[in-house]
Amino acid sequence: MQTELSKTLGVEHAVFGFTPFPAVAAAISRAGGFGVLGAVRYTAPDDLKRDLDWIEAHVDGKPYGLDVVMPAKKVEGVSEAEVEAMIPEGHRQFVRDTLAKYGVPELAEGEASGWRITGWMEQVARTQLDVAFDYPIRLLANALGSPPADVVDRAHDQDILVAALAGSARHAVKHRDAGIDIVVAQGYEAGGHTGEIATMVLTPEVVDAVAPLPVLAAGGIGSGRQVAAALSLGAQGVWLGSMWLTVTEADLSSPAVTRKLLAAGSGDTVRSRALTGKPARQLRTEWTDAWDDPNGPGTLPMPLQGLLVAEALTRIQKHEVAPLLGTPVGQIVGRMTSERSVQAVFDDLTRGFEQAVDRINRIAGRSGT
Amino acid sequence: MQTELSKTLGVEHAVFGFTPFPAVAAAISRAGGFGVLGAVRYTAPDDLKRDLDWIEAHVDGKPYGLDVVMPAKKVEGVSEAEVEAMIPEGHRQFVRDTLAKYGVPELAEGEASGWRITGWMEQVARTQLDVAFDYPIRLLANALGSPPADVVDRAHDQDILVAALAGSARHAVKHRDAGIDIVVAQGYEAGGHTGEIATMVLTPEVVDAVAPLPVLAAGGIGSGRQVAAALSLGAQGVWLGSMWLTVTEADLSSPAVTRKLLAAGSGDTVRSRALTGKPARQLRTEWTDAWDDPNGPGTLPMPLQGLLVAEALTRIQKHEVAPLLGTPVGQIVGRMTSERSVQAVFDDLTRGFEQAVDRINRIAGRSGT
Repeated sequence: MQTELSKTLGVEHAVFGFTPFPAVAAAISRAGGFGVLGAVRYTAPDDLKRDLDWIEAHVDGKPYGLDVVMPAKKVEGVSEAEVEAMIPEGHRQFVRDTLAKYGVPELAEGEASGWRITGWMEQVARTQLDVAFDYPIRLLANALGSPPADVVDRAHDQDILVAALAGSARHAVKHRDAGIDIVVAQGYEAGGHTGEIATMVLTPEVVDAVAPLPVLAAGGIGSGRQVAAALSLGAQGVWLGSMWLTVTEADLSSPAVTRKLLAAGSGDTVRSRALTGKPARQLRTEWTDAWDDPNGPGTLPMPLQGLLVAEALTRIQKHEVAPLLGTPVGQIVGRMTSERSVQAVFDDLTRGFEQAVDRINRIAGRSGT
Repeated sequence: MQTELSKTLGVEHAVFGFTPFPAVAAAISRAGGFGVLGAVRYTAPDDLKRDLDWIEAHVDGKPYGLDVVMPAKKVEGVSEAEVEAMIPEGHRQFVRDTLAKYGVPELAEGEASGWRITGWMEQVARTQLDVAFDYPIRLLANALGSPPADVVDRAHDQDILVAALAGSARHAVKHRDAGIDIVVAQGYEAGGHTGEIATMVLTPEVVDAVAPLPVLAAGGIGSGRQVAAALSLGAQGVWLGSMWLTVTEADLSSPAVTRKLLAAGSGDTVRSRALTGKPARQLRTEWTDAWDDPNGPGTLPMPLQGLLVAEALTRIQKHEVAPLLGTPVGQIVGRMTSERSVQAVFDDLTRGFEQAVDRINRIAGRSGT
């Protein structure tokens, strides 16, 4: 499964795996793909340093990358406390009421709450980058718009390719104009922040809009057939996130979340603003239902919603309050029915890809294949 | 582009084209695909007879089919007038106010209004079938659930394959259990009634759920790359509807609608209940915005919504009131940028398909292709 991009990066398969877990990122690269570590949860630079050291020690010299969340729009001179003060009391009360309704216990004294929002602040992302640029990462991805120009320049100086996610051809063109090297076309069916255009339509649109820039297809991909489909659409590779949530190497904070993921079907996700204030696909739960209920207060814009719910989500996770417990994940969750190793997922992807190519050749009447 | 299903039906390309226009249906079959005439607008049996006669005279002996809209649930002994009486006055007033706001003229005396709802009544569909069974149709498709058992039996007696649309694997299994021969997996990005699961995820799910029954992929398909993708996902063919709305053979009631379709991007559709009461993808307009506005009265359930808006839509179309003028169409509308003949669309699909197969073989490292 070789494209120009996979050759440039020196990987065997054009499969990019986004994961918050160092063990998963290293395993993806070892299996012949390209592991990308999500940095958003690292609020302490030393934690990121420790985990990058771990990857270096376990990646067998294979290439890997880092994914940060730098907001396109910078909020200058506003403290987290000042942002906190913008949250209406009615919304705070709704959180308290909902938690009380389900009997969600408080956190113990001194327990940390909610990394979610701080990780989005540009200063945190810059601290992460200061750490990451000391490691031989080959790719830097940004989930929210194009990274600032100085970050792109610094990456290019170190021969690091820069990728950015886009949900429309228009955003993809903005990325190209900002000097980005790779566009990740994130379809409607993907987990996390998504637009409304499905992968089948979005991928070729983005490919045509930014050609000859390479495009990775993201959203709805978890089998070899889907890899073949994405590459047929013109992508130079696939970007998988959800699929790694239930691998044996993953370290989900809660076994209850894993159980929910393994049981969920493709219709059990929702694109909701409940998590961050922007539409993000996630497991549908009684928590997302409460926020999406027209009789409720509704969600706040980013970054207020994330700040508002950070502690609540920590409490729900810590105490595994099943009806409220969710996680960002795409519609491919319906295919995540057992815990497998990263290598087993790759074996399945590559075998399924070869079978799909056999099939399409038969349909096309190509001989000798 | 040959699959088992295309061989069974004796067509050159596994491309099924759904269209309300006899000239388009005949041209699709003549071009080597399989034309399917949408029957919903034929409330008078003689009109359908006239158009099937026309197809017979122009299809050069190639196979074609018919698509009816038979509701899965039968409404026994309720007249259209009784259903009309269930519509709240507030909703009628909202229609009048919205039309007045945009200065939409009345219909002239005696002008027909709104075929939309009557076409969904089972008795109308049965009248259509009584006509159609006298013609050598090879496929009977139903857009709303499985057709009644006696209709399936009658079709099978005449060696007609029966197809039904499904937006989930669960619905697809119901179709299989009802004796349906072909499932059309209708993805989120498709025009008309759709579910929430995107084609990339839905197609392989449905393929696996009903195997060995053949599955057609619908939604987001309008180029050879997308055909290759759909077939990679396991489909035995593709089902295209939107793409034929702007072909030169089409006879759209309004040139203004054609202009809107040609100008629209993939982000200019909305999945709204405004048309029928069930979510259907269509051009986003100020009309759909009014119905989807949380400050408005909201939509009524099927079939009330369709009855409520039938005359209004006829007035909007007749007088080409641009801001309100829409049509069901999928996200592929972004690819519909010029008026082309059906043959030109086919040439593009087959050429693009071959190029996509070339590309996927290069990526797979297959020689000799």
